[in-house]
Amino acid sequence: MTVSAEQQAREEQLLERVVRSFDACPDPRLAELMVGLVHHVHDYIREVRLTEQEWGKAIGFLTGCGHITDDRRQEFILLSDVLGVSMQTIAVNNEADGDATEATVFGPFFVEGSPEVPIGGDISGGAAGEPCWVEGTVSDIDGKPLAGALIEVWEADDEGRYDVQYDDGRTAARGHLHTDDQGRYAFWGVTPTPYPIPHDGPVGRLLAAVGRSPMRASHLHFMVSYPGCRTLVTHIFVRGDELLDSDTVFGVKESLVKDFEQQPAGTPTPDGRRIDGTWSKVRFDMVLAPART
Amino acid sequence: MTVSAEQQAREEQLLERVVRSFDACPDPRLAELMVGLVHHVHDYIREVRLTEQEWGKAIGFLTGCGHITDDRRQEFILLSDVLGVSMQTIAVNNEADGDATEATVFGPFFVEGSPEVPIGGDISGGAAGEPCWVEGTVSDIDGKPLAGALIEVWEADDEGRYDVQYDDGRTAARGHLHTDDQGRYAFWGVTPTPYPIPHDGPVGRLLAAVGRSPMRASHLHFMVSYPGCRTLVTHIFVRGDELLDSDTVFGVKESLVKDFEQQPAGTPTPDGRRIDGTWSKVRFDMVLAPART
Repeated sequence: MTVSAEQQAREEQLLERVVRSFDACPDPRLAELMVGLVHHVHDYIREVRLTEQEWGKAIGFLTGCGHITDDRRQEFILLSDVLGVSMQTIAVNNEADGDATEATVFGPFFVEGSPEVPIGGDISGGAAGEPCWVEGTVSDIDGKPLAGALIEVWEADDEGRYDVQYDDGRTAARGHLHTDDQGRYAFWGVTPTPYPIPHDGPVGRLLAAVGRSPMRASHLHFMVSYPGCRTLVTHIFVRGDELLDSDTVFGVKESLVKDFEQQPAGTPTPDGRRIDGTWSKVRFDMVLAPART
Repeated sequence: MTVSAEQQAREEQLLERVVRSFDACPDPRLAELMVGLVHHVHDYIREVRLTEQEWGKAIGFLTGCGHITDDRRQEFILLSDVLGVSMQTIAVNNEADGDATEATVFGPFFVEGSPEVPIGGDISGGAAGEPCWVEGTVSDIDGKPLAGALIEVWEADDEGRYDVQYDDGRTAARGHLHTDDQGRYAFWGVTPTPYPIPHDGPVGRLLAAVGRSPMRASHLHFMVSYPGCRTLVTHIFVRGDELLDSDTVFGVKESLVKDFEQQPAGTPTPDGRRIDGTWSKVRFDMVLAPART
């Protein structure tokens, strides 16, 4: 694409004028965010030589995202997720720090006020799925066990649905517990299974148009907090899941892929619970970074 | 901002993964648009080190834009306008071509099927405002007059309102006419006055937060079409208007600023029309570029 000097000058002058319009912004950070945004958006339009028809489609796409979004559906977050924007934001805000456990996307299915369970308790709340014993420790980056750390966990059932997607409003497959005095925790949940993000809206149609699947790799959500530490929002993934390389929200980190060891029916459980069928177990030791100062 | 090598590697790997996710896109142009978008959005997040709170505010802002948008209000177009995105798209799609008249923003107030007026007719339709005689020619870039070119014009009344913003549904201050066999046109309208873009929504609040005015410089809209020529969408602006340097949608081009010559009460009019008070006149000769092949 060859652009004449006169044309380039016009495009650059326009960009400069837009940038200068933020000169009087009283909030320096807001000015930085707006000027940076304007530079990137204008550079993008100029690089791809965006047509007016494509601009119109983009306006229509955003409008569609806005109109499907309500208290239970957030299409703009889905959009952010499938473009890796959510994950990049998390990466930027959870910088590598020694052996600190990597963070991943928060997702839309966390709910405040989940049931408390004791160590070794069951968070499934009747959710359908193969029982899964999850155990591990929480420590700081110096290896010191963190006693009383708050662990929130939530996951989908074996049909890939979270309780907030049920029609009857019941709570299932979510809970919270605290580490013991040696920083240990354990609970029963269900073995994670893959599921699609909501794909009956504009974001789903975009994924279809670009030849991408709406599926997420199987995972179990954690949010772990402890005073003086950076709150960790993460998942663990199932080693061997064929979706690990194509998770549609780019949440998978190699360090978060864990062995979910399948146990044949009749295998004794860690806490003596009687289970008729198969079950699985997984270990996840978490390391919390110090809070930013 | 110092970012460790490990952290940089994580951020770059994520970006690469997102880019690769479009490898199977069946539409090469769509792939180009998505990959370019992803590069710019990720670079932006990494450069400004976007916080999770800022990301959340952006999601809330887009959601607010979506919810205020309906058949009569298009907040995403307003957003595009105030970031200069609309104007940059127009610049890219209306490249400089000899003396071709510069294009500017289309705006949300064009309506199909405006009344036809003869040359010298009145498009004001009873809109309040000082009468304004507009005259000029339409030619191609070789200077050849274009006979029968279609000229659509529309403008706000002297309170800054377009007819579509009236409550009673009447048509005013818009019309269309054709050039004569020497490419000439003339009509009566009203002298343009400044007005704000709709600023009671998220975009208006953004402008307030960054210390910008929602005002547009006074202008009169034109859309001119002729077979084999690039359709020209433009305005003319009023020389001396103090808002010329701060038009909130960046529509002003120096070449589009015209002398609206004020005429004292009693000055004879070009077509013998009797006017009791003051009136103005302006000349606007337009040059159409050839259509893209």
